[in-house]
Amino acid sequence: MTHAIPPDLQALIDRVQPRADGALARRLQQRLDRLTKPTGALGRLETLALQIGLLQGSSHPLLHSPQLMVFAADHGLAQQGVSAYPQAVTWQMVANMRAGGAAISVLARQHGLALTLVDAGVAHDFGAAEGLVSARLGWGTADASLGPAMSADTAAQALRTGARLLAERPGNAVLFGEMGIANTASATLLLARLAGVPLAQATGRGTGLDDAGLAHKLTVLAGCLARAPQASAPLAVLAEFGGFEIGMIAGAMLQAAAERRLILVDGFIVGAALLLAARLAPAVLDACVFAHQGAEAGHAALLAALGAEPLLALGLRLGEGSGAALAWPLVQSSLQLLDGMASFDSAGVSDRAAP
Amino acid sequence: MTHAIPPDLQALIDRVQPRADGALARRLQQRLDRLTKPTGALGRLETLALQIGLLQGSSHPLLHSPQLMVFAADHGLAQQGVSAYPQAVTWQMVANMRAGGAAISVLARQHGLALTLVDAGVAHDFGAAEGLVSARLGWGTADASLGPAMSADTAAQALRTGARLLAERPGNAVLFGEMGIANTASATLLLARLAGVPLAQATGRGTGLDDAGLAHKLTVLAGCLARAPQASAPLAVLAEFGGFEIGMIAGAMLQAAAERRLILVDGFIVGAALLLAARLAPAVLDACVFAHQGAEAGHAALLAALGAEPLLALGLRLGEGSGAALAWPLVQSSLQLLDGMASFDSAGVSDRAAP
Repeated sequence: MTHAIPPDLQALIDRVQPRADGALARRLQQRLDRLTKPTGALGRLETLALQIGLLQGSSHPLLHSPQLMVFAADHGLAQQGVSAYPQAVTWQMVANMRAGGAAISVLARQHGLALTLVDAGVAHDFGAAEGLVSARLGWGTADASLGPAMSADTAAQALRTGARLLAERPGNAVLFGEMGIANTASATLLLARLAGVPLAQATGRGTGLDDAGLAHKLTVLAGCLARAPQASAPLAVLAEFGGFEIGMIAGAMLQAAAERRLILVDGFIVGAALLLAARLAPAVLDACVFAHQGAEAGHAALLAALGAEPLLALGLRLGEGSGAALAWPLVQSSLQLLDGMASFDSAGVSDRAAP
Repeated sequence: MTHAIPPDLQALIDRVQPRADGALARRLQQRLDRLTKPTGALGRLETLALQIGLLQGSSHPLLHSPQLMVFAADHGLAQQGVSAYPQAVTWQMVANMRAGGAAISVLARQHGLALTLVDAGVAHDFGAAEGLVSARLGWGTADASLGPAMSADTAAQALRTGARLLAERPGNAVLFGEMGIANTASATLLLARLAGVPLAQATGRGTGLDDAGLAHKLTVLAGCLARAPQASAPLAVLAEFGGFEIGMIAGAMLQAAAERRLILVDGFIVGAALLLAARLAPAVLDACVFAHQGAEAGHAALLAALGAEPLLALGLRLGEGSGAALAWPLVQSSLQLLDGMASFDSAGVSDRAAP
């Protein structure tokens, strides 16, 4: 397989540029410092407001029409028993999300997030299902322990599809989620290969493997890495190890960053998609807010590889975008405080060092 | 000074009882385990739902009419230069909160929290000010480095007043906040005396002291402790070291716990008020959710003394109830998930160990 980056994807990658602007950063910091609070007293909310302002190129940043995009797909690796749940749970949970009964359905309603559910390649025939965007790249990936999860062309197509689906949606903020039995395994392989994290450190229990299950998963994943020792370029790694949903999320992230949309990064699997995107275009990280430090073993290593400090650490191990949805009100608060608080001058409050 | 607990307060304290109920805990856990997610995958949100269910004595807990109560008062200790800001900032910030320009004003609007602002004893004449509940116990406390901050009677009155103000308000959840220049100093003294934390560990920069200011604060606080070596009973400690707002919050917490209302604990000063309340009635802790791990030096020791693990750690050092307000959506999520998610049976999703 060749893994040259197709011209259209390269053009997208080239649009993802750093958002540093010293003069704007100073204007934003001055606005923050004049609010009626001790200097820096809003902690992480101040750095958030600064980041979003720089991303939007504005000293008065605003967020509107937040999109929550959940990509679902199946993984051939599930046949190797690397998940505590049967593969059928993927389509069943997609149906549950469509019906509004999944955790992410509840959180999307609570926070007014527009939920787009994408079938990236689930091993199930949904027919013409309402509330489901069909963007299927197959009936699940091939078993990555036996051969590549997908072709090089399909890997490129996954990124392209994710970028298109993102571009079709409104708003300037996007939260990503995923569903796919065994996708923790794919994410672990990406972390191991793209960031050089040893499998023993990167491999965790997913949604609930026991000790024997974890040991078996480690053996299977070691076999996958050994099968494709040459794969190192991002698209090659995606093709070898999957999955469809991870590739689409990576592509959507590149598109979002190119459009200066804010990206809320959920947990381990979405983080692995970001690792893929960041290896193609490092400046995608300027657009990213890390929502949640999850319980999955490799998540700490993944966050370290991305230089990330998540807003929340609630011990979630669910995926679906749940961590991102839970962090959304904090992101909103950062801008509402910047916009809604009085200044020392306007409120007649004494700043420090006053007599 | 005598510090016998007056009969009316003792009656309130006696109403604060543990909420353990093994059968109900099992019913709640069964509900959680049947939701369409891996067992335990909602992490802290599951323990939250369990706690609120036990507090309300219901397997279907609900939260309604959340109250945000901010108590403001001045501290004679401010004259000793233990704060980075002048004392006038207390009344100026109260005015700012009334006008809707403070951080807590913004967050209360964002989350639909009913804000009650209480003048517990600010050194300022607000006149008949709309949007401010007058419950003044003085023009600020006396300087605790020279003598008791308040009399034993006033300390009891502070608890009584807080309890009454809480009881007058609707709802089954309450968030506490505070405003008072130098109240970090009072909170530090309470932490040192009631929990035995050494001053060097308990004393921090408040809203922004520099190194010299911190060293001076430490000297002043050591003098306060040395002045009243005999004070150890909770009401005696409150009388010696203040403040009015801390006593009122402690009283309101006891009333809230007696009524089985959920209590969201903000940062360092509200935490010190809880320490006071918990020394009077340990079961008050059953009603408490800890919102935020703040940046104040002594906060970690305070949380350890209370056995608390806050939901958030965003580096805030603002007070006002800001941490509690920011955590409120997470508390709501815990119950909305319990109530709104489908079960494995109803959604037709396979549980683990299925073929």
